[in-house]
Amino acid sequence: MDSTHNPRLRSFVPVAAESHFPIQNLPYGVFRRDDQEQPRVGVAIGDMILDLALLEARGFFPDAGWGEASVFRQPSLKRLMALGRPAWREARSIISRLLSAEEATLRDDQELRRSALVPMQAAELFLPAEIGDYTDFYSSREHATNVGTMFRGKDNALPPNYLWMPIGYHGRASSVVLSGTDLYRPCGQTKSDDAAAPVFGPSRMVDFELEMGFFVGPGNALGRPIPAAEAPEHIFGMVLVNDWSARDIQKWEYVPLGPFLAKNFGTSISPWVVTAEALEPFRCAGPAQDPPPLPYLRTTGDQAFDVHLEVGLQSAAMDRPHVICRSNFRYLYWSMCQQLAHHTATGCNVRPGDLMASGTISGPTPDSYGSLLELAWRGERPIQLGNGETRKFIADGDRVTMTGWCQGDGYRVGFGEVTGRILPALGG
Amino acid sequence: MDSTHNPRLRSFVPVAAESHFPIQNLPYGVFRRDDQEQPRVGVAIGDMILDLALLEARGFFPDAGWGEASVFRQPSLKRLMALGRPAWREARSIISRLLSAEEATLRDDQELRRSALVPMQAAELFLPAEIGDYTDFYSSREHATNVGTMFRGKDNALPPNYLWMPIGYHGRASSVVLSGTDLYRPCGQTKSDDAAAPVFGPSRMVDFELEMGFFVGPGNALGRPIPAAEAPEHIFGMVLVNDWSARDIQKWEYVPLGPFLAKNFGTSISPWVVTAEALEPFRCAGPAQDPPPLPYLRTTGDQAFDVHLEVGLQSAAMDRPHVICRSNFRYLYWSMCQQLAHHTATGCNVRPGDLMASGTISGPTPDSYGSLLELAWRGERPIQLGNGETRKFIADGDRVTMTGWCQGDGYRVGFGEVTGRILPALGG
Repeated sequence: MDSTHNPRLRSFVPVAAESHFPIQNLPYGVFRRDDQEQPRVGVAIGDMILDLALLEARGFFPDAGWGEASVFRQPSLKRLMALGRPAWREARSIISRLLSAEEATLRDDQELRRSALVPMQAAELFLPAEIGDYTDFYSSREHATNVGTMFRGKDNALPPNYLWMPIGYHGRASSVVLSGTDLYRPCGQTKSDDAAAPVFGPSRMVDFELEMGFFVGPGNALGRPIPAAEAPEHIFGMVLVNDWSARDIQKWEYVPLGPFLAKNFGTSISPWVVTAEALEPFRCAGPAQDPPPLPYLRTTGDQAFDVHLEVGLQSAAMDRPHVICRSNFRYLYWSMCQQLAHHTATGCNVRPGDLMASGTISGPTPDSYGSLLELAWRGERPIQLGNGETRKFIADGDRVTMTGWCQGDGYRVGFGEVTGRILPALGG
Repeated sequence: MDSTHNPRLRSFVPVAAESHFPIQNLPYGVFRRDDQEQPRVGVAIGDMILDLALLEARGFFPDAGWGEASVFRQPSLKRLMALGRPAWREARSIISRLLSAEEATLRDDQELRRSALVPMQAAELFLPAEIGDYTDFYSSREHATNVGTMFRGKDNALPPNYLWMPIGYHGRASSVVLSGTDLYRPCGQTKSDDAAAPVFGPSRMVDFELEMGFFVGPGNALGRPIPAAEAPEHIFGMVLVNDWSARDIQKWEYVPLGPFLAKNFGTSISPWVVTAEALEPFRCAGPAQDPPPLPYLRTTGDQAFDVHLEVGLQSAAMDRPHVICRSNFRYLYWSMCQQLAHHTATGCNVRPGDLMASGTISGPTPDSYGSLLELAWRGERPIQLGNGETRKFIADGDRVTMTGWCQGDGYRVGFGEVTGRILPALGG
């Protein structure tokens, strides 16, 4: 831990007690003030965005070691992601100092403050990076057990490979969208068990999946795996992920080659990337792993992070979300380092901006299950929304909002939120 | 058909009778003369490459309708792909005319010929486009039947959804490599049926898969499916694809979420993109589809293409490849238009440069099977290489070369080749 993690550190920018974006966080995002401006990189602080492109142009990052090309006057974090940990640390240190209540440079320069600090409300946000490849893991043992129990019975719940490897699959990068993007209910083929033939139409089992994902920093060359011990050098930061799913489409399509159309209509992510540095104080032990992982998946020290997660559902008739799930990132059986070591074990190359999602994050108790499929147990136990409405799956007009934060001593390192609505199927 | 398809059309550039690149073809690729030059777009003609960036700069594409931005002075075909069919037709017509033996403009301008025509031998080739998303289908009924028979028995060979939808899965875009790239034998987890635990090490069942793939042209907006009838407007052209596979890794990992590490160590493609226009004369009927596809998958007219395909295997001890498979693209059960309509049925967006591969192309006879798994029938019938060597799967140092062409009246519209070697595992 360095001084940027000091719980007593305060910014001259006002930060509410419950804010996700105190000076201990400093998450990166891509924004612009208005549609005349090129999207650029900024950092969230309280309700404001610090314009890093502007500060960079004025020479505030002289020693960050990234040479002449601009890192922040970019419509993406990709260049920053590619720089690696020493540059990330240096940038964080400079930004922390500039925003500190103790430091006069920005605090006392009215003109600079006015031009460099942008109200978040007034800004338009963009995807943090154009995502090269998107991978989705399946790393919650509780989720895999729940789904397995529903579909194969309690005795065969976990697939035989589950405790040996972080199971994952390649997802669709083009349809990863920013929080706030509404999605049409997808159409696809479904088939009930007693029907002779499938039918095509709007999915009747649209679901969310509570996930988190990490962005890859520096990549590896094709053919050169990333050892688990070196994986932290390749992990830039994290976002919230809603891996929207159409359960009825999935059920009919997924044997033998896995989820395809059931997942490709949209995956929503939060706009602010919380860096691995900011998460350091919240490192904690994950679940014990038995059997012990094979050597290429072994790590030392704590590999989980204590991130409290919540999912709210708001129907068209409600004026605020009703919390239907409380979970925690620390429940995941497989760590991010193990995911990355496994993904590249064959020599597969990863690149800055690749997104790797965790899989649904379910905890041990029924209120911590990270999907409606589990919360309503395949429709057998519809959930209550608090206004008399119930849900087995997502209804048209429903908004799903996920949030998450690490609780520090008097401050929160938060992820903001990822939100989106399901609109009625087009022509459905 | 327009005049660019005329079998009697000849170029002033010498084209051997067996050449894949006569004036009726005109496939696009990305190349450079030397490492001082920026990669740019060219067209293959005989053993030469026509430098389109140079011709564009000299004003030879005035009416192509793509405005001021350069389409050919690009390290990728993506901009060309995005333009759509009218611009593709116009460009083909201009290039065909310029290369025609009847046209003096280029033929009689020694200086222009010297600078615009580059010997293919002297040029370095690149991936035709940075691939946004890579999707792999499973559209050969014969392949699916063979694999199903081996693993589930004859009576349950085809999955129940097979005849209802073009099954596919999302693949790894980062590890799509150009022909000529050698790959290390991948390491991964495998588990024999009688073992209590998996082991980690070099795959012992590396295989090729004979496939073809199409590049997407103009994309669709998220939420707006591409109807099957409009799919041709979104298909730019095709390449040969070798979907390298590690069968033993796949067997242990693929339930429940599909192939992951078994496929992500590398996928090889040929460098020259044969356009949909060039393939028009070779359109033919595909297999009859019974049951009739659901309405969203229905098309009219012939949707297959008569492309003769061959796979050669050359061990380290051999001085030329031995042909071990002869197949044809026309055998595929599901057409490209059906694949694209299915892929986007949920509203999934596709983008210029996305690559969609067919899945292994196996025909009805044992010598037409498109993978070693099938040719050697799971190792039970090792294949002969002609020099006394046999193979169940790929050995270190083996080179696999795939080629394909459409046979016209006195000319071939060919794909060149995709080739690559498997090197010994690193540290294995």
